[in-house]
Amino acid sequence: MNKTIQTVESAAAGSAFLIEDVYPLIDGGRFAVKRIAGDRIEVWADIYRDGDATISAALIWRGEQDREWRRESMTHHRDDRWSGAFTPTEAGQYLYAIEAWTDEFATWRHGVERKQLSGGDVTLDAIEGAGLLTKAHGAPQDAAAIIVRQCEDYLGSGDVTPLLVSELGEAMAESQARPDLTRSPNFPLVIDRDRARFGAWYQMMPRSQSAVAGQHGTLRDCIARVPDIAATGFDVLYFTPIHPIGRTHRKGRNNSPVASEGEPGSPYAIGSAEGGHDALHPELGTIEDFRALVATCLEYGLEIALDFAVQCSPDHPWLAQHPEWFKWRPDRTVRTADGPYSDIVIPDFASVDRVGLWNAFRDAMLFWIDQGVTIFAIDNHDTAPLPFWEWLIRDIRSRHPEVILFSKTFARPKLMKGLARLGFAQSFSYFPWRTAKWELEQYFDELTRYPERDFSRPNLFVNTPDLLPYHLQSGEAWMFKSRIALAAMLSGNFGLYSGFELLEHDAIPGHEEYRDSDKYQIRQRDWDKPGNIKPWITALNRIRNDNAALQQTNNLRFLGIEDGETIAFAKVAAEPANIVVAAIALSRHAREFWLPLGDLTIDAGGERHRVTTLENLMTGEQSRIEWGGIKLRIDPDRDPALFFRCLA
Amino acid sequence: MNKTIQTVESAAAGSAFLIEDVYPLIDGGRFAVKRIAGDRIEVWADIYRDGDATISAALIWRGEQDREWRRESMTHHRDDRWSGAFTPTEAGQYLYAIEAWTDEFATWRHGVERKQLSGGDVTLDAIEGAGLLTKAHGAPQDAAAIIVRQCEDYLGSGDVTPLLVSELGEAMAESQARPDLTRSPNFPLVIDRDRARFGAWYQMMPRSQSAVAGQHGTLRDCIARVPDIAATGFDVLYFTPIHPIGRTHRKGRNNSPVASEGEPGSPYAIGSAEGGHDALHPELGTIEDFRALVATCLEYGLEIALDFAVQCSPDHPWLAQHPEWFKWRPDRTVRTADGPYSDIVIPDFASVDRVGLWNAFRDAMLFWIDQGVTIFAIDNHDTAPLPFWEWLIRDIRSRHPEVILFSKTFARPKLMKGLARLGFAQSFSYFPWRTAKWELEQYFDELTRYPERDFSRPNLFVNTPDLLPYHLQSGEAWMFKSRIALAAMLSGNFGLYSGFELLEHDAIPGHEEYRDSDKYQIRQRDWDKPGNIKPWITALNRIRNDNAALQQTNNLRFLGIEDGETIAFAKVAAEPANIVVAAIALSRHAREFWLPLGDLTIDAGGERHRVTTLENLMTGEQSRIEWGGIKLRIDPDRDPALFFRCLA
Repeated sequence: MNKTIQTVESAAAGSAFLIEDVYPLIDGGRFAVKRIAGDRIEVWADIYRDGDATISAALIWRGEQDREWRRESMTHHRDDRWSGAFTPTEAGQYLYAIEAWTDEFATWRHGVERKQLSGGDVTLDAIEGAGLLTKAHGAPQDAAAIIVRQCEDYLGSGDVTPLLVSELGEAMAESQARPDLTRSPNFPLVIDRDRARFGAWYQMMPRSQSAVAGQHGTLRDCIARVPDIAATGFDVLYFTPIHPIGRTHRKGRNNSPVASEGEPGSPYAIGSAEGGHDALHPELGTIEDFRALVATCLEYGLEIALDFAVQCSPDHPWLAQHPEWFKWRPDRTVRTADGPYSDIVIPDFASVDRVGLWNAFRDAMLFWIDQGVTIFAIDNHDTAPLPFWEWLIRDIRSRHPEVILFSKTFARPKLMKGLARLGFAQSFSYFPWRTAKWELEQYFDELTRYPERDFSRPNLFVNTPDLLPYHLQSGEAWMFKSRIALAAMLSGNFGLYSGFELLEHDAIPGHEEYRDSDKYQIRQRDWDKPGNIKPWITALNRIRNDNAALQQTNNLRFLGIEDGETIAFAKVAAEPANIVVAAIALSRHAREFWLPLGDLTIDAGGERHRVTTLENLMTGEQSRIEWGGIKLRIDPDRDPALFFRCLA
Repeated sequence: MNKTIQTVESAAAGSAFLIEDVYPLIDGGRFAVKRIAGDRIEVWADIYRDGDATISAALIWRGEQDREWRRESMTHHRDDRWSGAFTPTEAGQYLYAIEAWTDEFATWRHGVERKQLSGGDVTLDAIEGAGLLTKAHGAPQDAAAIIVRQCEDYLGSGDVTPLLVSELGEAMAESQARPDLTRSPNFPLVIDRDRARFGAWYQMMPRSQSAVAGQHGTLRDCIARVPDIAATGFDVLYFTPIHPIGRTHRKGRNNSPVASEGEPGSPYAIGSAEGGHDALHPELGTIEDFRALVATCLEYGLEIALDFAVQCSPDHPWLAQHPEWFKWRPDRTVRTADGPYSDIVIPDFASVDRVGLWNAFRDAMLFWIDQGVTIFAIDNHDTAPLPFWEWLIRDIRSRHPEVILFSKTFARPKLMKGLARLGFAQSFSYFPWRTAKWELEQYFDELTRYPERDFSRPNLFVNTPDLLPYHLQSGEAWMFKSRIALAAMLSGNFGLYSGFELLEHDAIPGHEEYRDSDKYQIRQRDWDKPGNIKPWITALNRIRNDNAALQQTNNLRFLGIEDGETIAFAKVAAEPANIVVAAIALSRHAREFWLPLGDLTIDAGGERHRVTTLENLMTGEQSRIEWGGIKLRIDPDRDPALFFRCLA
């Protein structure tokens, strides 16, 4: 007999039920579904076995580190499709699974009822039913009392009726043995706190925050900036790296391969004699200053996000302390990164001492968490292997479930999605290169479709220190306002790099890069420069904060309007009931168009109400909907977008 | 530290690559993909890792019992999507998997080429490249020779050029170590012989085959029938159970609960004092007769299919020999099946001696395989647990990969699909209840869609011993001809129960059941009764045998015609190139309609040719296609269907 033939015993121990087509599920459970604390997680599955016995199913769930499963009963809808739900209220890593089993007593009861209807003799059935009761040993006290009482009634009367009361059915459903119980695999679920879904990010280079021309900015200068950034409505203050900067191969202005004396270099060349990933660049200040910054941010409702780049300058202390963590060339120099990145060294993640290296990066992150950092933006992370990220995220989140890890990379589509699946709470997107209406509609349909919606949360940056998109290079205010409106309204998470609000648009010709980028030099800006769009951004953030529908991404739904250069969409929140409609111009000319709103309804007090009125969220003005829609006018040079709250 | 934190070592041992969205795949590999021997199995997957190293991938496959994997290289298309293919030529159970790894030498070479292009110094790179060669120890002889020669050339010249020759690249691709090799899980694949995809089934009750009125038919009578059945073009001769029939609760005519003296009972009440599942009903003849039948069938190109029902009459020898295999009632009677099935007993598949019971059924099947049976139709199999079927199929197919197991049950949709996924090679379908054009189109689109097409093969029966559909009850010849044409043309597998060809249509009023069904009595028929549609069926089978496009199901494509009561479709086969177009009337009136054929093309000799001509497969008449289609006329009272071969 060949060895691939399964024994009866191992086959019979297999699953009596098939539990299939489980929703939600990412790659059959290989990766975690992501949701937010307080979300009701509705789980659906096909659950069935042979024959027509009465079956029951439960949805079980627990925190990964909990010992006990919690359980919710599942309901059969039709066509063997079941659902159940649970609501985790804390961030963390969870598991859920589905159990199915035969309710033998209910099956017996249905058989008896059927036989009674057709006038059959149920004497033997009654004895069998009573026999089932005796198997429900170990029933909880209340159930046991019901079981004993109904059994006694039956024995006294000889009539099957006491065995058919529904109270007994329920007691037995809960108490009887479940010999054919089948449990699905455990499926992973990650619960993040609300900030993973909703936040406005302001990114800046701390050394560019001095008010004094030519002077290196400090963390104290950053503290001085906090009130204004908070007043503009931002939630996250996001810093480029704050660590000591290497000197070897230091970059000069505009990415020049050689720095002149006194040039500060790129902060992404992490590490020097002054320290590495757990040190602060001395010119920025001290750890006490950093703590003061955290405290000020807290006071103003801002969180701090740090860039976390797993790369080193050639002067990073680790090169001397742990040469085995790096790749060396035949001339005993260290291998630097390819192309324009000669000021950085990629560690060897497959090093013989990878335990040391991986833990060192993890410990650096833990160090900053101890200083009050709750968000990390992972830069250039396609330089480390995928298992490293999966491990790091799980390790950090097991200790600090509140921490948010943002995958800040522009990579190939599959790799972007792969990184999101591995566990990053948020991701960069191709938004900066999606400008036409059809591109935006198609791309956001893709991002908000299942299963992508359940593992990927886009964070829409209108620009970055490395990216000044072509469409911003003419510096037209309407375009800046249109882009930031798109970012703020399409997604729960959006961000900008400082200078955007001042309409900075000086590019290196033919490239989507800033000229004189403060990535390679110190800059100062007049934050109240005339023509800045801070009032527009402040209004967008106010509208976002006032409307639950805008505090998420997956509730997006495009509205069909005829104008090919105006994009319109609705976002609908259930609790509290809130619908926002936005129309945003993608070109500069003034336009009028018809916005159809036909089937939008608001659920309130258990009733469904048709939307009758739009309230302009900028002006407060109200307009009645007539003929299922409304005629609108946008003049982009005034404001390139309109936002409305729907009223019943 | 909590225990859910993974160690670096175990994380680093994880997969360097993500291998995702594998096609074909059923439920992430839980169930086998099904194909036919000789099919080219094309496998697709997203394969990627971090960074931009040059990677390679291979598709590996083997018979489940083979020791060695075979391997085919995979090709990158775009967007990290790869494909490869292999062609198993024998029926059996296979595994396939995907391997991906970094080609370090190619990655090095691309780096050098890039650097050369930009005028960089590659002296150190050359040393590093030569160093990679020394790591390719254990290379196959040919490759080793190339590697040594190029290395010597490099050492002699000091020039990098010898390291960049493509021959060396290939030798290294094959030979170098693959430290980051990632292998996907093994995915199961079942290969069936061609009969699983293509066959015309003729089902009959052997006891009804006597030519002498009132006499119990024998296997010798069946032998006498073989030439006629073969001449009608059938491939499979399918028998209802041939085992001894129980006497207890024996059914009388028309399913009467009590049989009169001398009534033969239902053959589905298997087992009596004369034996059980491995015995032959004495009145049918002997095992020698059965072998003679098999031999005659073989001679005429017919295979024998047997009903295999895992149920017993209360008189089955197993009840006395193995009382523990059954469920007993408080009065020590055995529990019979519910409802109208009081003449049968369902064994207890969870019996303490389930090893004995499961093996006994398996051994009965093996017994009949030894007698020459190659196909089993599994009757009423929703009475046994799902793990039993999965085990039985795997067990039987591991020993006899040529055996075909047909899931002959009408159950709920999910259960039907679940049974198909568990491994049945063919399945009943809802075809008998799909009569309107939209129903047929929708249902067959569903059946032939991925992934269903890869696990489920419908076998379309126009009637069964238990089923005389309402639409046949008026006995109109055009309807019988339309239904059998639909079955024969829509699917590679179809069948009928004897009597259909004689337009039998006498129903129990209000039911889809035959009156005086030979399930409960012996019947004789005049097989050449006037008005029979054997010539029509013979023509359908001839057309099927002559046209490769009709020997499969998943190549079905509906054609849009305006007539709502005529269904039209094309079936396209690639090798040999063959296209058949069918138009079938679903109502009785004569009609004319336009059949559009716009984009049908025939691939021949590496060229694509537009279809220009239709050849009527009944008459041989040829018609030119004009204006992208053709005008047709169907008069159902003459023939309710038209079939054409497309010519270029």
